[in-house]
Amino acid sequence: MPSTETLGEFQFECGESIPELELTYETYGEFDGSNAVLVCHALTGSHHVAEPPRSDSWRRDDAGDADAADGGNGDGDADGAGGTAGQARAWWNDVVGPGKAIDTTEYYVVCVNVPGSCYGSSGPASEAPDGEPWGTEFPPVTVADWTRAQRALLDELGVGRLHAVVGGSVGGMNALDWAKRYPDDVRRVAAVATAARLDPQCLGINAVARRAIATDPHWNGGDYYGDGPDPDQGLALARQLGHVMYLSKASMERKFGRRAAGRDAGSDRFPEDPAASFFPYREVESYLDYNADRFVERFDANSYRYLTRAMDDYDLAAGYGSDADALAAFEGEALVVSFTGDWHFTVEASRSLAAAFDDVDVPVAHHVVDSDHGHDAFLVEPESVGPPLRDFFADGVDGRAVRDEDRGDDDREEQRSERAPVHASLFSG
Amino acid sequence: MPSTETLGEFQFECGESIPELELTYETYGEFDGSNAVLVCHALTGSHHVAEPPRSDSWRRDDAGDADAADGGNGDGDADGAGGTAGQARAWWNDVVGPGKAIDTTEYYVVCVNVPGSCYGSSGPASEAPDGEPWGTEFPPVTVADWTRAQRALLDELGVGRLHAVVGGSVGGMNALDWAKRYPDDVRRVAAVATAARLDPQCLGINAVARRAIATDPHWNGGDYYGDGPDPDQGLALARQLGHVMYLSKASMERKFGRRAAGRDAGSDRFPEDPAASFFPYREVESYLDYNADRFVERFDANSYRYLTRAMDDYDLAAGYGSDADALAAFEGEALVVSFTGDWHFTVEASRSLAAAFDDVDVPVAHHVVDSDHGHDAFLVEPESVGPPLRDFFADGVDGRAVRDEDRGDDDREEQRSERAPVHASLFSG
Repeated sequence: MPSTETLGEFQFECGESIPELELTYETYGEFDGSNAVLVCHALTGSHHVAEPPRSDSWRRDDAGDADAADGGNGDGDADGAGGTAGQARAWWNDVVGPGKAIDTTEYYVVCVNVPGSCYGSSGPASEAPDGEPWGTEFPPVTVADWTRAQRALLDELGVGRLHAVVGGSVGGMNALDWAKRYPDDVRRVAAVATAARLDPQCLGINAVARRAIATDPHWNGGDYYGDGPDPDQGLALARQLGHVMYLSKASMERKFGRRAAGRDAGSDRFPEDPAASFFPYREVESYLDYNADRFVERFDANSYRYLTRAMDDYDLAAGYGSDADALAAFEGEALVVSFTGDWHFTVEASRSLAAAFDDVDVPVAHHVVDSDHGHDAFLVEPESVGPPLRDFFADGVDGRAVRDEDRGDDDREEQRSERAPVHASLFSG
Repeated sequence: MPSTETLGEFQFECGESIPELELTYETYGEFDGSNAVLVCHALTGSHHVAEPPRSDSWRRDDAGDADAADGGNGDGDADGAGGTAGQARAWWNDVVGPGKAIDTTEYYVVCVNVPGSCYGSSGPASEAPDGEPWGTEFPPVTVADWTRAQRALLDELGVGRLHAVVGGSVGGMNALDWAKRYPDDVRRVAAVATAARLDPQCLGINAVARRAIATDPHWNGGDYYGDGPDPDQGLALARQLGHVMYLSKASMERKFGRRAAGRDAGSDRFPEDPAASFFPYREVESYLDYNADRFVERFDANSYRYLTRAMDDYDLAAGYGSDADALAAFEGEALVVSFTGDWHFTVEASRSLAAAFDDVDVPVAHHVVDSDHGHDAFLVEPESVGPPLRDFFADGVDGRAVRDEDRGDDDREEQRSERAPVHASLFSG
């Protein structure tokens, strides 16, 4: 069940402040003083990373809707009948929970909706001191603001040092920022399907997405929270671009091919022309329309602009000479997970990130998953992501299921022997 | 200088007809009965493939603006002071002309603006019999309609069999359609940076682009040709998506990196919010805004929707069991050119296309250019594209500069000997 904490005045990296920062979060498991794991959500995700244990049966039904989560980039698309109104479904329910890879009977898991988002934490859609929504008067947010807000919340919760912080996509940037900003507060950092910074192709696509929102006349300079229409068409376009980025050519070929969808599948949310009836309405278009139309019901257009800006802005090396310098004070261990089919956050970007850890002698493994799921792999392949996370949290880079692309299987035993792992029993059999 | 031919009634593939099909085209060189080369333009390109020889000096200045053409996908972005109003600059001027790879002192080059476009040929923006613009009452167009219209125009020009047909991107689909539809009318077909059909990723992006136009309130169901505003914002978004597709991660890294553009570079064509001034306006965004804003001045939004639909719809195998079957009647030779950095029309798609020619014993070479320019390579690397085209037109797949990825350099001489090339002198030295 989500909780909301009011933290008082918060100064953002830009210098502006708000008098009350509210943070909505969920925790799972029991804190024992040293078992806290912070999970950082992706762009349009929320604090709702897992279903609570022994939830009502309708929740279990909802959680089984894996296909609907496909393409969701950290939030899932299925709100599900009876689900938390307006909130994304549990986005990593196959990875986080009792007995799962991030085992909530062992770890105290915390997930916080980031400032600037729209699932309860302070953001453009939340109420300013004058009683009206902030709109675009909400201060610009950065990934550093997310990290600092999470630090403040953890203080409230009595959590000092984290056993681990993990995140995927921009949530991975958030995790990296922890190792940079609070190097003494994290034992193990896991950066999944992410990069030290966006490349210009991703920057360009995010800029187009923001422009789509800003040029929707209903955006109205960000002031649309009254009775009038929302900038749904612009937000829908932004979301559709996201879906294309999160999938891959291979996954789209498998899911859609060039197949036509039924005529009835056509969206009636926007006008078409007579020629539309001559050409097939294809499954890929139907998928994009359907998911975009659902997304706009639960996400705020201003938040989309705020959060993509934070993502664009993030640069691990900022304030330092290099990525390695930014990580130099970190004394824990690092796991970098990448996916071969991810053209948004590439294997090469993860390789470079792992090299930065290695340059400053942080024990690091770059675990490459062979996958054709695109960027979404970190959400839709729990069987690929879970085991290395589980074993990394337990045993660091020497964890059994943790592979490193620079180490062959043959010499791993040797490396492990040299490092004298404490959990040697894990390697038997 | 462009000419316009009125061809009388034309029935489109969809079954609808228009009473007068107008086609705007340019020719270069002299027809000698067997030297005609049809050049097919890309999505937003025009008949204006090359500058006329001995043009005015301002045209030469304009043609030197290579960087502005970068990202143009077959049309170029520089209208140039004094250039043909509203028309794209010569888009392959470094490849087509006197003494150039497609030498207009040797070949009679014809390039036709396709039906559905907006550079003089009949399309949504042109006048219907009632004196008003057709708008979305213009019949849906297909690549087959382009081919048939070109065939009709060539009949008017007295050109029976073509020595060659060449095109890039969707122009390459147009070229392939010639080999399928009029197999006896083409000696040599060159398909550059293209594919037998779009993959679902490209279909998805085109669908988003069309939705961007349709959801611009100024589109008004396609009826915007009066005094009111045009759907420029939607068309701008569509164009920006195109630019992202035509570039590559590597070319964007080189051109833009994450660099900030000057504050003055900001577009004032659409509203922004206060946060915009905290984050840098980056070069990649400036490039996309600048080029999109120029594009909307010269291209018609309905045409963009019509032509992307034609592209989406194209399937070489349509009406046949396979790509190979569709090409079985073609008795000429084929050159397939692909670029390693092109993620829109991949090397793999070209490989599959070349295999289809090979399956039906059409002599074919798949010439792979190592390039990081993305899809735009076929426009911005005349030094890579020109020589294989020149030598393929002259000598077919045995042409000196024609490489085939399945043939190493060492065994090429042997293959040539087996084929007993008639132009053996070309291989000396």
